[in-house]
Amino acid sequence: MGGSNRRWLLKERPVGMVGEHNFEWQEAPIPEPGEGEALVRVLYLSFDPAMRGWMEDRPSYLPPVAIGEPMRAGSVAQVVRSNREDLAAGDLVEGMFGWQEYAIVGGGGMAGAATRIPAGIEPRHTLGVLGITGMTAYFGLLDLGKPQEGDVVLVSGAAGATGSVAGQIARIQGCRVIGVAGGPDKCRWLTEEARFDAAIDYKNDDVAKRLRKLAPEGIDIYFDNVGGEILEVALGQIRQKARVVLCGGISGYNEAEPPPGPRTLMNLIIQRARMEGFIVLDYIARFGEAREQLSKWLAAGELVHKEDVQEGLENAPATFQRLFEGRNTGKQLLKVADAV
Amino acid sequence: MGGSNRRWLLKERPVGMVGEHNFEWQEAPIPEPGEGEALVRVLYLSFDPAMRGWMEDRPSYLPPVAIGEPMRAGSVAQVVRSNREDLAAGDLVEGMFGWQEYAIVGGGGMAGAATRIPAGIEPRHTLGVLGITGMTAYFGLLDLGKPQEGDVVLVSGAAGATGSVAGQIARIQGCRVIGVAGGPDKCRWLTEEARFDAAIDYKNDDVAKRLRKLAPEGIDIYFDNVGGEILEVALGQIRQKARVVLCGGISGYNEAEPPPGPRTLMNLIIQRARMEGFIVLDYIARFGEAREQLSKWLAAGELVHKEDVQEGLENAPATFQRLFEGRNTGKQLLKVADAV
Repeated sequence: MGGSNRRWLLKERPVGMVGEHNFEWQEAPIPEPGEGEALVRVLYLSFDPAMRGWMEDRPSYLPPVAIGEPMRAGSVAQVVRSNREDLAAGDLVEGMFGWQEYAIVGGGGMAGAATRIPAGIEPRHTLGVLGITGMTAYFGLLDLGKPQEGDVVLVSGAAGATGSVAGQIARIQGCRVIGVAGGPDKCRWLTEEARFDAAIDYKNDDVAKRLRKLAPEGIDIYFDNVGGEILEVALGQIRQKARVVLCGGISGYNEAEPPPGPRTLMNLIIQRARMEGFIVLDYIARFGEAREQLSKWLAAGELVHKEDVQEGLENAPATFQRLFEGRNTGKQLLKVADAV
Repeated sequence: MGGSNRRWLLKERPVGMVGEHNFEWQEAPIPEPGEGEALVRVLYLSFDPAMRGWMEDRPSYLPPVAIGEPMRAGSVAQVVRSNREDLAAGDLVEGMFGWQEYAIVGGGGMAGAATRIPAGIEPRHTLGVLGITGMTAYFGLLDLGKPQEGDVVLVSGAAGATGSVAGQIARIQGCRVIGVAGGPDKCRWLTEEARFDAAIDYKNDDVAKRLRKLAPEGIDIYFDNVGGEILEVALGQIRQKARVVLCGGISGYNEAEPPPGPRTLMNLIIQRARMEGFIVLDYIARFGEAREQLSKWLAAGELVHKEDVQEGLENAPATFQRLFEGRNTGKQLLKVADAV
């Protein structure tokens, strides 16, 4: 098969804000699938704040992306040619195929794994609300947050892919939900579309003051996607026995040095509260349960979600940056090709 | 009854390091017990880092000590005269009698409550290893830390009253215990007397480096009494599913502004770890269970403890400061009078 496989390789590890300079554009030949392998064409790429961590050379829950390797990313692809019995040309699959147009699956390693997308599921959803994003919201909020009816739940990064789902799950559980997001458009989307009880615009509001007004008794659950100042404010306003779910800390991901933690940390003692981190990959055995439940809520209209779809593989680094600039509402995706 | 009741009243709320200037020496008349009340003479005062927080006018788990009120403190006293049926002259009681020579008990409020000390217990121990200190170590380590045999447990403030007991309980549970303390004498006491597996002298060692060497696989439990830099180091070296027990943060108690939190906080995510605060008063219903178990360990020689006993009520502020200067090994007490 002729043609080229355009890809973005990791060129250098980021110090400070990630950008196109960290990646190298390469046009390689389209690879040939060997025995037991298939060639897939990438249709959509997923962009998640955690990917920033994968670029760093430090011990973490996944090995770092190697220099010279395509940038790792969740993706949806279509099988082009297959030497695997379980996959046929035209099949839609999800996997970690990375920032490239074509990938070999079944070739071992993380990039080699491919899961067929069940019929009846919009393929893009396996990257968002029914994918890692939705799973993260589901297990973080339910397993760590342990919501009780009537709890006051604060979610940061609330208009993001994970935050928006986490907040809605909390609402479905009978909680009062306040979202923190940047800008009036996101805030309007939160209260009008995602039916959060209230939204705080951190770009224009005094978050601490507004939170005190919206939740004078304090918050029972804080689902944190951002860290930094908003975490500091939230910890300062927790209620007794509060649960702080550490999902992410996007505000610090592009700092050259990890930023200091919250000055309000000791409030965990006074309020007998708990702060806990998690990695959604630990819940793989329960993904089926979550996907089923999320699908039901989606079908019933109790859960809405939004996608921000950019286009063209050449825009992958710029699309990635959108996350850190807070430009996406909902799930950040990049369309690489149409299914055939 | 003639004579005077010498006392230390809270004069002004501290900003920065607490000192004698925050208190006022007063010689008041010895009060007369009314109906249903008793007069007690204070024998020993307990000094605990948490008292620093009680001096501040901010919402906490106890109301702040009022300006002009005797400084609140755990104490052992002896009944002088009693109009209560349940107390007789000569009885030994424990309670929050504060920095004064005499107090009225049964007069309502926290300072009015008195509990008779059971026969067979050294009265001073009700302020330390069998008192709030021991309870704090017991419930913090067991209920929040959830030690498993073979766990690596790090304790800061390890030569202090709570830390030394927490570490020994961990050792009794089959854990490998590393203590952090200031200076070679304390460290020697930890390994030789309290039988910690190892000690790190934060005044002379590179804590991060030494911890990496002593626990190359990381730590499963961190029992934190100090906050600050040692918390930052510890969080940087936790193992998967670690439990961080926030007992106190003495390093920050005398800062004019709460200091920034640890830069390593996000490691809670990567390690799927939990950090939790607690207030021992929530466990009052289970104090009996803890006292019984701690007494058994004491009697069996599995648990040792140390007291640092200063003398004379006039030295109360200076004795309090010893905690923040790290001058005490074990429980800091002040002897006010002899029992008669």
